[in-house]
Amino acid sequence: MQGQMMDFQLTITAILKRLKQMYSQVEIVTKTPAGTMHRYTYGDCYRRVCKLAHALDRLGVKLGDRVGTLAWNTYQHVELYYGIPCIGAVTHTINLRLAPDQLIYTINHAADKVVFVDVTLVPLLEKIAPHLTTVEHYVVIGAPPGCQTTLPNALHYEDLLAPEPDHYNWPELDENTAAGLCYTSGTTGNPKGALYSHRSQYLQAMVGGMSNGLGISSKDTIFAVVPMFHANAWGIPYTCGMMGIRQVHPGPHLKPADLAQLIQDEKVTMAAGVPTLWMGLYQELKSKSYDISALRMLLVGGAAMPISLTQAIEKDFNITVLHAWGMTEMSPAGTCTGVAPPGETCEEGSYWAWKTRQGVPVACVEVRIVDDEGNELPWDGQAVGEVQVRGPMVISSYYNDPSGDTQFTKDGWFITGDVATMCPKGSMGITDRSKDLIKSGGEWISSVALESALMAHPKVAEAAVISIPDQKWSERPMALVVARPGETPSKEELLEFISPQFAKFWLPEEVRFISEVPKTSVGKFDKKVLRKRYAEGSL
Amino acid sequence: MQGQMMDFQLTITAILKRLKQMYSQVEIVTKTPAGTMHRYTYGDCYRRVCKLAHALDRLGVKLGDRVGTLAWNTYQHVELYYGIPCIGAVTHTINLRLAPDQLIYTINHAADKVVFVDVTLVPLLEKIAPHLTTVEHYVVIGAPPGCQTTLPNALHYEDLLAPEPDHYNWPELDENTAAGLCYTSGTTGNPKGALYSHRSQYLQAMVGGMSNGLGISSKDTIFAVVPMFHANAWGIPYTCGMMGIRQVHPGPHLKPADLAQLIQDEKVTMAAGVPTLWMGLYQELKSKSYDISALRMLLVGGAAMPISLTQAIEKDFNITVLHAWGMTEMSPAGTCTGVAPPGETCEEGSYWAWKTRQGVPVACVEVRIVDDEGNELPWDGQAVGEVQVRGPMVISSYYNDPSGDTQFTKDGWFITGDVATMCPKGSMGITDRSKDLIKSGGEWISSVALESALMAHPKVAEAAVISIPDQKWSERPMALVVARPGETPSKEELLEFISPQFAKFWLPEEVRFISEVPKTSVGKFDKKVLRKRYAEGSL
Repeated sequence: MQGQMMDFQLTITAILKRLKQMYSQVEIVTKTPAGTMHRYTYGDCYRRVCKLAHALDRLGVKLGDRVGTLAWNTYQHVELYYGIPCIGAVTHTINLRLAPDQLIYTINHAADKVVFVDVTLVPLLEKIAPHLTTVEHYVVIGAPPGCQTTLPNALHYEDLLAPEPDHYNWPELDENTAAGLCYTSGTTGNPKGALYSHRSQYLQAMVGGMSNGLGISSKDTIFAVVPMFHANAWGIPYTCGMMGIRQVHPGPHLKPADLAQLIQDEKVTMAAGVPTLWMGLYQELKSKSYDISALRMLLVGGAAMPISLTQAIEKDFNITVLHAWGMTEMSPAGTCTGVAPPGETCEEGSYWAWKTRQGVPVACVEVRIVDDEGNELPWDGQAVGEVQVRGPMVISSYYNDPSGDTQFTKDGWFITGDVATMCPKGSMGITDRSKDLIKSGGEWISSVALESALMAHPKVAEAAVISIPDQKWSERPMALVVARPGETPSKEELLEFISPQFAKFWLPEEVRFISEVPKTSVGKFDKKVLRKRYAEGSL
Repeated sequence: MQGQMMDFQLTITAILKRLKQMYSQVEIVTKTPAGTMHRYTYGDCYRRVCKLAHALDRLGVKLGDRVGTLAWNTYQHVELYYGIPCIGAVTHTINLRLAPDQLIYTINHAADKVVFVDVTLVPLLEKIAPHLTTVEHYVVIGAPPGCQTTLPNALHYEDLLAPEPDHYNWPELDENTAAGLCYTSGTTGNPKGALYSHRSQYLQAMVGGMSNGLGISSKDTIFAVVPMFHANAWGIPYTCGMMGIRQVHPGPHLKPADLAQLIQDEKVTMAAGVPTLWMGLYQELKSKSYDISALRMLLVGGAAMPISLTQAIEKDFNITVLHAWGMTEMSPAGTCTGVAPPGETCEEGSYWAWKTRQGVPVACVEVRIVDDEGNELPWDGQAVGEVQVRGPMVISSYYNDPSGDTQFTKDGWFITGDVATMCPKGSMGITDRSKDLIKSGGEWISSVALESALMAHPKVAEAAVISIPDQKWSERPMALVVARPGETPSKEELLEFISPQFAKFWLPEEVRFISEVPKTSVGKFDKKVLRKRYAEGSL
């Protein structure tokens, strides 16, 4: 028997209607490339989204067509996040940090019909445009009058919108209609696309507003530093629209002083971004005086947050650090440390031990850990297994790329590539990426555990541990350490510091000091580069 | 083009799995009929839900069968909330406050195959059992050894569960499968059933955890005073399971002193119930000394909350009063005052003016107001229209009752019967039930507005305003006022108090003082009774 409930579709259009009807007075603030502040309301935004929809129709964009965006976080990017999917097309958020070859690959693979590009990013696109085979129109955002470009068929965003009416008759879309496309920078092979549906975006928006999800409140002013081209911007543009939350966007201004100034001036209550940003911000806040009293929470994701940094931020500034784990393939929310269960401790019995873990699966996400044979392992905080996930916000396959099919189990779970324990209270503790595990003399060594331990040392800013080839043990760990400014830790004091936590064979013989850890386009430690650099090992 | 996301179904079973896997250590506390405290964990609950599922199978309950519950808020009722729908059957929560004829009607109309009944409610059921045509088994909950009943085929809940295994292989259900059935006590005709789906229950559970929904946090201990037989218990049993929230259930103990004691002893942070409960609680807290320092919020719904009571509670005890509006037909969440938009004021410019309204539509709910011709009216805080709603948590028709089809528009909206303004910030202000509007000399008078104004007077506990027949004006308002204990307000001082707010013709000539306002089974003012009592009017 079926329930007798309305057949109402969960779509971005439904969110768009909310933001128009209920939140027309709420503000969206953007720091423009020129450094001036642009302010308007959700009401203004809605009217321009309507204009954009008409313009897309005029450009010949049809149901299911992909439309690329190569842009920073700005109000125009918010407009694209709504206008494109609400006419039934697909927003392909292009990662501007990809290498040129990868940019070409993703745009051609997505077969983008139109690409919207920030004027500051036009030079990047001009270089690769001759290789793009499907793009019919380029639309330049924020161009000054008389701006010249070699992009073929280039249009200006404001010119495109100007003649169009500011209301639009939105189509009724099925909730499973494709809405967004985001490529993940794989460690092997070409980038692979996650093709989101309206339904997955809607549910992700709800999770963002749940107190055990991202914990975004209707009272917040959110500072969306996580790029809108990265992992679906953690669903934040849609959570904000659904709940009427004031947004502040940094545009291309991501230096620590820019961030601190915007947090102060715009009375930001919650800021969302990757750990490296907060490391810079922390130094900035310690070295100069800002009024950041409105700031209640930092939402951190995209990479592991050093517990020492979490502690420093929470203790020095009384700001809650909420660590979330997810993946582009998961829309992206997976787990969140947000609010711990009663008592706020994990098995180890301390608040900081809880904070060190990745947190509890959010609503709509199922997690299991399995052994090498695929057997499910207990959630006892001890058993280490590969993390697999399932849910309405997880992809079922990669967009037009059967080579990714190996990342799905026969019974329909997505293989994340992370290796973790699950504690009895449901919090995940990632021990490693499966490819980052070090197998030494037949025993596993966790590079992430070593990194965390090293980064807890007060003289250490960052530490990466990689596997290097070894004649005797086949693999051994090597530590690459970045000292804090003005500090010169010795190998000996670091090993002494971490030794109580590990079996002796875990301790790396090689500890080298480097000036910075190379990062991927999304700010994660790029161990590929390090492994290549130190590939000789002791063989 | 379709998104490539997993075809994961939003079901109560998915919530049940979360509760088992992540929250097995979280407590559910129940005050038993005997007055003792029963404590166990979600882990214990899960194992008993498995036993219950096996027992239902054994009793012959199949996919789609209705299973009745006639019970207070207890841990056993929580078990039924999960066990019944997760095998694919339908939980029919029977309203124990219905008149015997209505009880018979609803149980026969639902065609319940099995009815679970609290031992304290067996006498009620014994009286009507001869008229129940479909029930094959009665299962008595909480019966002492040797308990006798005239109910045919009576079983005892614990006996039923005892022999069964404590694990169960849950079926994969489609999210549109029927999950729950709740009858609404209509003001005309027979009660009508709302048949919820797994999907609607899942979304309702998420809304409960959103900061612009019911605002339940993972840190809360929630005191579920709203009956589990009333309006789907506001989805709270499922929100709690989804988020691992500690629950406290009062069983049949609803006296103010019971409530205050439980809030103190169990360190309740959030309590949910109808206004009359909180009126009693407020008096209790003022007259005796309790430590209710943990209590942060009262969630109020089911009827309008007098603003004077909201003010008294917020000011005297520093507890936030969160007023929600909804209907059984809406799962039930509709709007919520929870967190106001930035500034926390409505057009009138004050916090209390905002609090007087019903709040902003929660996620998944669309609202419109229309005039008599069905034209949509603006959200300007001025235009008064009939409230219509739409969304995945709203029924599309009543269960097996075409007589309710008139409550749906041709374009698929549900006609709530409420009349309201919508302010530009999206907050609904109900002016009346459409049937409670008074038409005097061709002009509309809002009974609710008069009631609210009267109840703002410090000497007034409750006030109901009804329409009485009038020779000259066809209808006139009459006020029925309940004074606060120890107070004796005069008609003159009340009219003087409210007169600045209304046109002169709105002021009632008749003001009578009564000892209490009759209530419906769910605690709303029963104006039917009052209208009957004062039907003579001045004709």
